[in-house]
Amino acid sequence: MAKGITKRSDDYSQWYIDIVRKAEMAEHSPVKGCMIIKPTGYGVWQKMQQHLDRLFQETGHENAYFPLFVPESFLKKEAEHVEGFAPECAVVTHAGGKLLEEPLVVRPTSETIIWSAYKDWISSYRDLPLLINQWANVCRWEMRTRLFLRTTEFLWQEGHTAHATHEEAEEETYRMVHIYQKFAEEYMAMPVHVGRKTDREKFAGALHTYCIEALMQDGKALQAGTSHHLGQNFAKAFEVMFQDKDKERKYVYGTSWGVSTRLIGAMIMTHSDDNGLVIPPKLASLPVVFVPIWRSDEEEAQVLGAARELTKDWDPLFYKIDDRDHYKPGFKFNQWELKGIPIRIEIGPRDVANHQIVAVRRDTGEKITLPMEGLREKLEAMLEDIQQNLLAQARKRVEENSYVVDSYEDYKARYEDGGFFHVFLDHENPAVEEQLQNETRSTIRCIPFNAQEEEGPCMLTGKPCKGRVIIAQSY
Amino acid sequence: MAKGITKRSDDYSQWYIDIVRKAEMAEHSPVKGCMIIKPTGYGVWQKMQQHLDRLFQETGHENAYFPLFVPESFLKKEAEHVEGFAPECAVVTHAGGKLLEEPLVVRPTSETIIWSAYKDWISSYRDLPLLINQWANVCRWEMRTRLFLRTTEFLWQEGHTAHATHEEAEEETYRMVHIYQKFAEEYMAMPVHVGRKTDREKFAGALHTYCIEALMQDGKALQAGTSHHLGQNFAKAFEVMFQDKDKERKYVYGTSWGVSTRLIGAMIMTHSDDNGLVIPPKLASLPVVFVPIWRSDEEEAQVLGAARELTKDWDPLFYKIDDRDHYKPGFKFNQWELKGIPIRIEIGPRDVANHQIVAVRRDTGEKITLPMEGLREKLEAMLEDIQQNLLAQARKRVEENSYVVDSYEDYKARYEDGGFFHVFLDHENPAVEEQLQNETRSTIRCIPFNAQEEEGPCMLTGKPCKGRVIIAQSY
Repeated sequence: MAKGITKRSDDYSQWYIDIVRKAEMAEHSPVKGCMIIKPTGYGVWQKMQQHLDRLFQETGHENAYFPLFVPESFLKKEAEHVEGFAPECAVVTHAGGKLLEEPLVVRPTSETIIWSAYKDWISSYRDLPLLINQWANVCRWEMRTRLFLRTTEFLWQEGHTAHATHEEAEEETYRMVHIYQKFAEEYMAMPVHVGRKTDREKFAGALHTYCIEALMQDGKALQAGTSHHLGQNFAKAFEVMFQDKDKERKYVYGTSWGVSTRLIGAMIMTHSDDNGLVIPPKLASLPVVFVPIWRSDEEEAQVLGAARELTKDWDPLFYKIDDRDHYKPGFKFNQWELKGIPIRIEIGPRDVANHQIVAVRRDTGEKITLPMEGLREKLEAMLEDIQQNLLAQARKRVEENSYVVDSYEDYKARYEDGGFFHVFLDHENPAVEEQLQNETRSTIRCIPFNAQEEEGPCMLTGKPCKGRVIIAQSY
Repeated sequence: MAKGITKRSDDYSQWYIDIVRKAEMAEHSPVKGCMIIKPTGYGVWQKMQQHLDRLFQETGHENAYFPLFVPESFLKKEAEHVEGFAPECAVVTHAGGKLLEEPLVVRPTSETIIWSAYKDWISSYRDLPLLINQWANVCRWEMRTRLFLRTTEFLWQEGHTAHATHEEAEEETYRMVHIYQKFAEEYMAMPVHVGRKTDREKFAGALHTYCIEALMQDGKALQAGTSHHLGQNFAKAFEVMFQDKDKERKYVYGTSWGVSTRLIGAMIMTHSDDNGLVIPPKLASLPVVFVPIWRSDEEEAQVLGAARELTKDWDPLFYKIDDRDHYKPGFKFNQWELKGIPIRIEIGPRDVANHQIVAVRRDTGEKITLPMEGLREKLEAMLEDIQQNLLAQARKRVEENSYVVDSYEDYKARYEDGGFFHVFLDHENPAVEEQLQNETRSTIRCIPFNAQEEEGPCMLTGKPCKGRVIIAQSY
C-alpha cells in the first residue's frame, strides 16, 4: 500500500494512528489531550447521534441540556462519585476578570448538576418516570490519550432517569444497555457481549453497571457503552423525593447511561483494513461518491452531464460527484477508498454510451457493472448488503477469537494473542481480579447475561463458581 | 388566563419569563448565568439544528469539532479580537490536580483555535475553499442574563471558512447571511431585515459584519444571526498561507458566521400569545398530540384503541397519544396549548363512532372536525397552513410597526412605542450612533441591503446620506 498506512500485521497501533490521520478522522490539538474531530470523523458521529437519538426517543426519552460547569461542592455530595472523578477535573477559578467565589468544575459527567435540578422537577409519582438524555461535551484530564479512545475532552450522550421503584430503575438500566447492543450490532455492524461489570469496574456512585464489550481486530476488548443503576445514591445526596400513590414521601431511584466518540475508535478497529477506513453504510454521512473519468473537455461535459442527469432527483446528502479537475481519477479512487465511503461509482464516456456505471464496494473491493435505470434502488440494496456483510465478517472474527479456557496456565499461554476468554473466575473477590490484572494485564470485561448455566472452579482459587465470565486485555 | 401567564399587554418582560417557565422551555441553573434547557426548549433547538445543518451541507459545508479550551496566548494573537472577548472569558487554571502552565480559556468563540489548525490544513489553492461548521457550546461571562437571549453558556453553530480571494470570502459572507434569512423566514416564520452592521457594532476582528434583524411583539429589535467577513486578519495572525495557481504564496481570506439558542427566544417573542408558547410546525419536535376523552374504563379502551389503530403506521416522532390517566382532558388541553404544540386532536367515544376526530389549531384556536380517513395527509396540510399563517401574521405585525421618519424630533416622540424606524443617519460617524444611543437607547440595527435608492439629510447632523438605515431599541 503506497498510501502511508502501516499494515495491521506489522504494527497495529501505528495502523490505527495512520487510519485516523490519513482518512482525516481526527488530529491532536494544541491543547494537551484534546482532539480536533475532522469532517470524516464528525460525519460518523452525526450519523451515530441520529440513530441513537431516535432509539432514545422511541423509548420515551426526551433531550435536555444542563450547564457545562458544576460547582465544586456539588461533586462532593456523593462520596464515591467525587473520589472517582475529582482527580480528573479541569477547574475554572476565574471568570469575567475576577476570582470566582466557588471554583467551577468542567463537567466530567453530569449526575450532580442534573440531580440538583431533579430535586425541583420531581415532587409526585405523576412526575415519574423522568426520562432525560443529554448530548454534550465532557472533560476528564487524562494522562495518556489516544484519538477517540481516550481524550481529555470528548463528545457523548448521557441519559439520566428517575423512577419510583428499584424494579423500574433496574428495567431501565437493562433496557438501555440492550439499546446500546442493538445500536452496536444493527448500525455499527459490531457484535458485542452484554453483561454486568464487577464491583471493581463499576461506575463511581452506582449500585451496578451493565456494559457492552466489543472485540477489536487485534484481539483486545473495548468497552463501548455502559448503563448504571444508581439506586437511591444520588437521590439521597440531592434530596430528591416524591410523594407516592400511598401518600408517603420516598427517595427516587436513578439510572445513567452513556456512549461517546470512543465508538468511532471502535468502528475503525472493527471494520477498517490496510487500504484505509471502512464505514458501515448506516454510519456513512456520504454513502455514495461518483468519480467521473474523462480525457478531454468534451468528455468531461458528457460524463459530468450524465452523472448530474442520473442523480438530479436524489437527496443531495446521499451522494457526491467528485468533479474536482485538479486531481486524476486514480488519486480520487484512492482518496475515497481511504475515507471508507461504502460505494464508489466510476463513470466514463463508454459507460455513458452504454447507459451503465461501475460500482465498487468498499467492503469487498468488488466491481459491479450496473445499468443506469433504477440505479438508486440498486445502490440502496447494495448498501444494505454491505452492512450485513460487515456484521457477518465481524461476528466471524469474534467467534474465531473466542475461547473457552479452564486453567490459568492455559490462559497465560494464550492471552497474549488476544481474544475473548470464557473462564470460571471468582468475580466477587476483588483480589482475584487484581491478581489477574497484575499478572496478565487482563480484566473481567463482563459477567455476561447469556452465560450458560454451568459450574466450575475459579481458575485462580479453585472456589466453585456459577457461570463463566469473559476476560480479555482491553483498551 | 388562569395559567399563571401574565398578559403581554400588562407586562411583556414578565410574560416572556412566564412562557419560558410554564412551557418548560428553560430555567436558571445553580451556576450563575447558565441555563438549563428543558425538553420543550431543547426539542425546538434540535429541529433548528436539523434544518440549518441541511442548509449548510447543501451549500457544501462540512461539520467538524474543535476543542472547548483555547490557550490564552491564542486569543491574544488578533488584537481587536482579544480586546472584544478577553473581559468575558472563563479561565481554567487547574486540571488533573495541578496548576496549568498556561491558563486555558473556555471558548467564547472559536476563530483562534480553528485558525491555528487551518495553518496545517491549507497549503495549496487545491485546499480552498475550506468550508467548516461547528455545533458547540460557548461561554461568555455576562453580567445581566436572560434565558435564551443572553446567557453565560449557550449553544450555537459557528461556520469558519477560508478562501483564495477577497471576492470569494465576500460571496460566502453574503451567502450565509441569506441562508439565515431563509431559515428565519421559511422555518421560524420570522421575517427579518438583512443588512450590514455599522463599524461600531461589527464583530471584533472582522472587516464587516452582516446580520439579520427581527422585530419582537413588544416592538424591540433582536439580532438573530451574524456573518462576518474576516479579511486576512486571522490568516495573518495565524500565518495561514497558500500557494496559488500562479505559484505565489498568499494569505487566505476568512469568514465566520453563527446563530445560537438565542433564536429560541426570538421564536417565543415572535409567535407566542397570552395562552402560552406557539411553535411553528417546522420547529415542532412533536407536531401533533392526541388527547383521548373517556369517562369509563370501557370508553378508555375504545378511544385509546381507536387512536392507536389510526396512528399505527405513523412515524412515532410525529405524534403522541396522551394516555396519562391521572390527569383530566381539560388539564391536558391546557398543558399542550401552553407548550405550543401546533395541533391538538380531541377524540371521544362519539368521535370514534362517527369515524372522526376534532383537530384544534394552536395558531387560531379553530376547532375542525376531520374524518379519520386520510387524516395524516390532512394534518400535514394543516401544519403547512399554520406555518404560512404564522409567517403572514408576523409579517403583518412588522409592517404595522415599521415607520419612515425624517426628523429626530419625530423619532424621539415615537421610539418608545417600539418598531423599526427607517431614517437617514450618518452611519459612518460613530459619534452619531453614540448620541442616538445615549439619548434614545436606540442603535442602528442594520444598513439594509434592499434600501431604496434615495438621498436625505442625516436626522442628527444634516449631512447628506445615501439610503436609509434601520434604527430601533433592541434586545
